[in-house]
Amino acid sequence: MAVKLGILGLGTVGTGTVQLLQDNVGRHPLLQDIEIYRVGVRSLTKPRAVELSPEVITTDLEAIVNDPAVDIVVELMGGLEPARTLILTAIKNGKHVVTANKAVISRFGGEIFTAANQAGVYVLLEAAVGGGIPVIQPLKQSLSVNRISAIMGIVNGTTNYILTRMQTEGSEFDHVLADAQKLGYAEADPTADVDGLDAGDKIAILASLGFDGRINREDVHCEGIRQVTKTDIAYAAKLGFVIKLLGIAQHLDEDNSQLSVRVHPTLVPHSHPLASINGVYNAILIEGEPIGQVMLFGPGAGAGATASAVSSDILNLVATLKTNTAKPNPLLACRHQNYSEITPISELVTRFYARFLSKDQAGVIGRLGTCFGNYGVSLESVVQTGFQGELAEIVVVTHNVREGDFRQALAEIQAMESIDSIPSVLRVL
Amino acid sequence: MAVKLGILGLGTVGTGTVQLLQDNVGRHPLLQDIEIYRVGVRSLTKPRAVELSPEVITTDLEAIVNDPAVDIVVELMGGLEPARTLILTAIKNGKHVVTANKAVISRFGGEIFTAANQAGVYVLLEAAVGGGIPVIQPLKQSLSVNRISAIMGIVNGTTNYILTRMQTEGSEFDHVLADAQKLGYAEADPTADVDGLDAGDKIAILASLGFDGRINREDVHCEGIRQVTKTDIAYAAKLGFVIKLLGIAQHLDEDNSQLSVRVHPTLVPHSHPLASINGVYNAILIEGEPIGQVMLFGPGAGAGATASAVSSDILNLVATLKTNTAKPNPLLACRHQNYSEITPISELVTRFYARFLSKDQAGVIGRLGTCFGNYGVSLESVVQTGFQGELAEIVVVTHNVREGDFRQALAEIQAMESIDSIPSVLRVL
Repeated sequence: MAVKLGILGLGTVGTGTVQLLQDNVGRHPLLQDIEIYRVGVRSLTKPRAVELSPEVITTDLEAIVNDPAVDIVVELMGGLEPARTLILTAIKNGKHVVTANKAVISRFGGEIFTAANQAGVYVLLEAAVGGGIPVIQPLKQSLSVNRISAIMGIVNGTTNYILTRMQTEGSEFDHVLADAQKLGYAEADPTADVDGLDAGDKIAILASLGFDGRINREDVHCEGIRQVTKTDIAYAAKLGFVIKLLGIAQHLDEDNSQLSVRVHPTLVPHSHPLASINGVYNAILIEGEPIGQVMLFGPGAGAGATASAVSSDILNLVATLKTNTAKPNPLLACRHQNYSEITPISELVTRFYARFLSKDQAGVIGRLGTCFGNYGVSLESVVQTGFQGELAEIVVVTHNVREGDFRQALAEIQAMESIDSIPSVLRVL
Repeated sequence: MAVKLGILGLGTVGTGTVQLLQDNVGRHPLLQDIEIYRVGVRSLTKPRAVELSPEVITTDLEAIVNDPAVDIVVELMGGLEPARTLILTAIKNGKHVVTANKAVISRFGGEIFTAANQAGVYVLLEAAVGGGIPVIQPLKQSLSVNRISAIMGIVNGTTNYILTRMQTEGSEFDHVLADAQKLGYAEADPTADVDGLDAGDKIAILASLGFDGRINREDVHCEGIRQVTKTDIAYAAKLGFVIKLLGIAQHLDEDNSQLSVRVHPTLVPHSHPLASINGVYNAILIEGEPIGQVMLFGPGAGAGATASAVSSDILNLVATLKTNTAKPNPLLACRHQNYSEITPISELVTRFYARFLSKDQAGVIGRLGTCFGNYGVSLESVVQTGFQGELAEIVVVTHNVREGDFRQALAEIQAMESIDSIPSVLRVL
């Protein structure tokens, strides 16, 4: 008997998923055992790129998650509510769930997975991170035999597109953002992307899988790319770096007691595998013992890529339903209930890039060095090349330093009479 | 009750796997339900890097695959026999099998998977291709909702190491090979690696999974890197390419009736994702509809990376054994019985790079062009820069051409009086 899907949402991803499932020749044969039984939409009259018979389409989303005939609920509406409530109702009704909703999972994952474990159903979310890139399943299964030490990735296509264009064209952020909005690569309200919030949702999810504990979304430090300027991109290039918005989750110490989860623009060495990931592509680098470094690369968004990920979760569930399992498969279920303790950003140990504008060239480098030295900040390089009007521009890259110490030094430097301003502070990988 | 492993072979990979499984804290908790019950070795007296109690180690490998207590046989001995027979016996006895043996699977996969399907057991082989990179499971599961159009990869670390060093140092093949042998990056008998046979095994396996049909190993056209010279690497660089040994499996036509599976040194454009994969790293690029391009990158060999892949298969089987499945999981079982028809290399349509040494400069380019034109070969670029003694060196890159036509033209050119020799013919991606 066919497995019956109740799909919530028929936007870009929903339409792509329906297209993939309807046009199933040449794909995995199990997809032929699927029936698109109900599709919940907001408007019945909106023209659609897919053909669905009238009894399949409904505006009553509650009815779908409460329909005893539905085996799998596929939540593709996005947003927090009513998505969260519909997912929880579906679980309570014993239905498996597939979702692409990183915002809901990163905020309400604890509630959702607790409910799923109690109900003996699975909630799969391959499409929530990295578009079509298989990353959630590898982290839950293949790579989970490793002790993961770091997950870092370019997980937001919009910001990577903007940074790539700023880099190649030497343009400023505002200009590229406006153009990206015109071309459809950025939303009219770009906040979630450019302020790093979307990337924050995604790295929270990856961290929970890789480090085997729930993550409080509020513990994830998020900085976006609004403050990245073409001047900094040019200096970074001179120093051998490219600037990327990275989501990073990593153990800070040898005994794995400190976990840092954060999003910020980062100076990435040219030779690093993430440095050459350009445009709307995503890539996730996973470091573990004994595997070393593995990188998964692909399209981070788009109807087709996301539909591929959604359908792969559906495929997994269909296979499970076909095997009549007596007990839940521990590789599909969520395996942790505890919350991870996240180290505050002030305890992060990292290298920094900082750019200063100074009124007084003679002696200022010495004063910077002395002040940094007082806080235990040692400098890897100091560059003074440019001028902005009458102000001398000084760029420093530090060695590894505790962020709290560095910030204290910066506050003192900010107050120096010879310092006009500190336009940029960025972390270095 | 613990799942009992019978491990065949305690070389590099076997030792790495035992180390991972013994040191299981901080890895997936299911690994704690595993007992290393028997390990088959050739010599009981050889010193080992792992501690195993004397009753675990045995030289009687037959006894392991016939022992009713063994749940999973992990074949890590390599070579064709007795590996093949031991795997088949284990299957006949109802045991699941994990293997890292690309040579056995690419040659006897048909026999092995037919037996496994009949016995209702699984044969998993994540470690057979790409070392630690999760690629077999994604191809069988996540990515299988796509229509795969091409799989291409750098799947042999030794040759990629050699080509990378030839590229960066401007050295010749023989010199780098000798050094690689000294450093342990190449075997004393390097044939399987440098002649493309190992890569041939691996692309045959990837092709069978991606294109859903068995592959006759003899149908895979294999060329190695012995004929790649520093001269060609330098010309390729000038033309915007880097030379990589690629395993390629792709549909040649729109209606997917022609499948080409082959290994050869290939000129890869600098901008291509595979161009920047250097040293012993592996990477596999998968193209499908609707996902687009996905690339999986990581360490292609080494005890730790391979142990990670072997252990991930063991983990999958332990999870399956724990769920008491009534029917086999179609995502773990082999799903095809038929053999794919492979298009002969002469029918391949590709671009070519060829280097000619000519005695007579005046007019020779014209004669080359005329001859190529007679066979429908059109030229994308013609470069005449170098001299080798009295001979002029001419390099051409063709547009897409049927390989058979190109070879006929080459044979005619070879016979021209003004042509001294054709030292290099390479395909271009």
